[in-house]
Amino acid sequence: MMQRGGLAVAKAAMRQPLRRMASLSLNNINQQVLTAEYAVRGPIVLRSAQIKAQLASDPSSLPFDNVLACNIGNPQAVGQQPISFNRQVHALMTCPDLLASPEAAKIFPADAIARAKEYLTSVPEGVGAYSESQGFAIVRQQVADFIAERDGVPANPKDIFLTDGASKGVEFILKLMLRGSSDGVLVPIPQYPLYSAALALADSHMLGYELDEADAWALPMEQVEKAVAGAKAKGVQPRALVVINPGNPTGNSLLRPNMEEIVRFCAKEKLVLIADEVWTAAREIQPTGDCRHGHHSPLTASFPPQVYQENIWDEGRPFISFKEVVSTMKDAPPVELVSLHSVSKGFLGECGIRGGYFELAGFDPEVQAQLLKLVSIGLCSNTMGQIAVGLMVRPPKPGEPSEPLYAQERGAILSSMKRRAAAVAASLNALEGVSCNAPQGAMYAFPSITLPPKAVAAAEAEGMAPDAYYAMHLLENTGIVVVPGSGFGQKAGTWHFRTTFLPPEDQIDLVGERMAKFHGEFLAKHA
Amino acid sequence: MMQRGGLAVAKAAMRQPLRRMASLSLNNINQQVLTAEYAVRGPIVLRSAQIKAQLASDPSSLPFDNVLACNIGNPQAVGQQPISFNRQVHALMTCPDLLASPEAAKIFPADAIARAKEYLTSVPEGVGAYSESQGFAIVRQQVADFIAERDGVPANPKDIFLTDGASKGVEFILKLMLRGSSDGVLVPIPQYPLYSAALALADSHMLGYELDEADAWALPMEQVEKAVAGAKAKGVQPRALVVINPGNPTGNSLLRPNMEEIVRFCAKEKLVLIADEVWTAAREIQPTGDCRHGHHSPLTASFPPQVYQENIWDEGRPFISFKEVVSTMKDAPPVELVSLHSVSKGFLGECGIRGGYFELAGFDPEVQAQLLKLVSIGLCSNTMGQIAVGLMVRPPKPGEPSEPLYAQERGAILSSMKRRAAAVAASLNALEGVSCNAPQGAMYAFPSITLPPKAVAAAEAEGMAPDAYYAMHLLENTGIVVVPGSGFGQKAGTWHFRTTFLPPEDQIDLVGERMAKFHGEFLAKHA
Repeated sequence: MMQRGGLAVAKAAMRQPLRRMASLSLNNINQQVLTAEYAVRGPIVLRSAQIKAQLASDPSSLPFDNVLACNIGNPQAVGQQPISFNRQVHALMTCPDLLASPEAAKIFPADAIARAKEYLTSVPEGVGAYSESQGFAIVRQQVADFIAERDGVPANPKDIFLTDGASKGVEFILKLMLRGSSDGVLVPIPQYPLYSAALALADSHMLGYELDEADAWALPMEQVEKAVAGAKAKGVQPRALVVINPGNPTGNSLLRPNMEEIVRFCAKEKLVLIADEVWTAAREIQPTGDCRHGHHSPLTASFPPQVYQENIWDEGRPFISFKEVVSTMKDAPPVELVSLHSVSKGFLGECGIRGGYFELAGFDPEVQAQLLKLVSIGLCSNTMGQIAVGLMVRPPKPGEPSEPLYAQERGAILSSMKRRAAAVAASLNALEGVSCNAPQGAMYAFPSITLPPKAVAAAEAEGMAPDAYYAMHLLENTGIVVVPGSGFGQKAGTWHFRTTFLPPEDQIDLVGERMAKFHGEFLAKHA
Repeated sequence: MMQRGGLAVAKAAMRQPLRRMASLSLNNINQQVLTAEYAVRGPIVLRSAQIKAQLASDPSSLPFDNVLACNIGNPQAVGQQPISFNRQVHALMTCPDLLASPEAAKIFPADAIARAKEYLTSVPEGVGAYSESQGFAIVRQQVADFIAERDGVPANPKDIFLTDGASKGVEFILKLMLRGSSDGVLVPIPQYPLYSAALALADSHMLGYELDEADAWALPMEQVEKAVAGAKAKGVQPRALVVINPGNPTGNSLLRPNMEEIVRFCAKEKLVLIADEVWTAAREIQPTGDCRHGHHSPLTASFPPQVYQENIWDEGRPFISFKEVVSTMKDAPPVELVSLHSVSKGFLGECGIRGGYFELAGFDPEVQAQLLKLVSIGLCSNTMGQIAVGLMVRPPKPGEPSEPLYAQERGAILSSMKRRAAAVAASLNALEGVSCNAPQGAMYAFPSITLPPKAVAAAEAEGMAPDAYYAMHLLENTGIVVVPGSGFGQKAGTWHFRTTFLPPEDQIDLVGERMAKFHGEFLAKHA
């Protein structure tokens, strides 16, 4: 690392003679920042921005006419529309004066007005004041009610923390517990790269355990045990186990016996269980049976869990929360659980608003107080994001004026996503050497690709991971932006990329066509 | 610390036998979290919440009937109204469908509609998508234009980073540069406690330099030099110098010769200069001359800087940005500058929205790229906060439909604040042993208090700082919440507290009366 930093600095000094006096150089900044990688916004994304600019200034300079961003789960950036009811409540919270305006009643449905009034009665100061550090009490109560109905076990608003998206919650939890290079955290491979980046920044170890691609990305306990043993052999203490359920980028949902094993393992090894459950909503694109638009959604908490589990989820693969498992399993050992959720995923897709929550269970109250202190140093999460969380967990119910439109908007997004998921999987599986599990998550496919030895050698010659080499060539030749599997971690000797299927339906076929043409040429070139 | 942690854990174990199995205890969490203190939301605030709850359930149980929160600069929590124009644009950004509605034209002024359309033309995906990691390009351009007009020197959008409030910017910068216990950062005493907390979390040293209360909180260079020498003697490397200008909680504005000294010192000592300039807007409550409502505000960038400096600022104390000083001083040595701003302060007071920015100048491009990577791990700041920054730096101009109302709302807030500031200072200075510099900042007074030896002894017996003891007694007897000076740092042997003057004008007199009665009784009790 020092070698690389030193070289880079020397090069920078040659290019920028005036900068030689700068106090900060790659050599003397926080080396954890230098180490951290974040594939989702890495070099391929930077290159795609250059290509986009080139196309804007000279559209005919490249063999394609637009950049197709399949790299990031950012649905509204590629045409998904926000849910009307939620935005109406946001607008009324922003301009409370509207509530008294006669025109407002013509524009806004009665239940949006009622919801804004409900929030403003509880929070008369509105969205312009700092909230409690944990977030608005009324929203935390709504989250607790949602969890209690979902799981059939109680939840307490004092254990709910509202955050600027789920990423922020992960950062707080890791900051609370990690003491540096003596500590490690178990993270699935493939994983969402936030975890590897956050662990690098904390100077702690990412202890990867491999999911089983051959078994639809199941979580094999022996892989977790192997990772713990490996860490201990190196003198690293595992402190927490991250489970992404449903999986990102893999989309797999865990079964109850597996979840119970995980809980027992965490208790035995004294690991905090971090359940990243932000993809709950996303799983809704896998309806089986007679799902009617939205009426049996896990987000429509007015329906008992059995109903939506039977109707929405994959056969034999209902989503079960870890909170429910920990609370109901026989002889449940004491375990500390953090469960994270977010408004960014699934049909809401409210990425820019930055809303999320985490729930704690089983924490020592004095440790929980330290976490609250840590959160309070950042004052509070943004209040519009907090309202977005309230709207996520308490959507319009049947009989309320906005429910029909809500159900229609939600259904249209989910059914379109389902069609796009199928189209993307079909075009990927048609490619030579490419194999793609049916996407179960809402936004991503994570195909494995077999790369010819010549491509692997060419990549190595350029100092790139072979799948990064593939992804960069894909971008340069087609404008399609995907994230190489090496950014998520993958079993040694396998190569993947992650692609969203978020572009509008009329572009999805284009993605398939361009990809097929490129793939054939890439194989031919490296044969 | 281990002693205290161990004792606390033992006590917790006695109270919570079921928790003995917990993986996390005060002994094995990140000890930097345990060390970090955050006075603004510390024990006195927690106690005030209990008292508030007690008053709600039994109003006659205490000798006062309400809690008066003077502890936190959160103006909209105590009655300040948001600026209409800004919130109208927010509402339109939230519900873009409104732009096509005929009713909207009746509700929203034409320039609010035009502004929303301008943003949505540049960002057609709206506020629901992740933005670029640095923030919307259009808002960064508006910020650069604002800075360029304010300072008369160019600014570049690529050097602007939009953040969730200024606190987040401070965190990013410190995270980028600090390598742990070998590093320190120079911070004024008294300081805003975010810095002490952030440095504790980074396991780095806060190197305090004392401001001179006797000289209206001036910044004496010999104090900075002393702090640097002291750090070096202990083997700690100073990495950055934080200047809060105008000061918080002190309100003082620096003069140009002092600022030039500071820049030369940073260059000589290879310190990054962190200019916390979030109180710029706040200084507007000190008009001299014929200031008409808002027309010559530093936020109304259409006016040349000389005009608003002559009209708005204190005699001989115009606000000057460090960007201007660094860019225009003769023989300016190369120095890395970070300048922070926020929508939370002054007449906007949009604390809950969480919007801010920082500008970099003089950074090595490769270091700046590392900062961008660090920021990108958190994806982006909340988009509504980004829009709030755009609205701050580009308010309605004279001749635009919303300008008269904007100027009226702004003027009413600022003139009321000025009256309240004078009232609070007068009632504080009337108290025996209390001395208060005229508040120059928008929200706070920071009086020094002479405490009788008996009070100091009683505080020590309870393990409290004497001013924390005073503040706790003040709360218990009057319901007034202030922050003890020990939370900000102060010259040894002096005691202070920080109080806002944000409560509505009809309550400000009540604060004065309750405080006078308490203060007399407190002195009598400890005579």
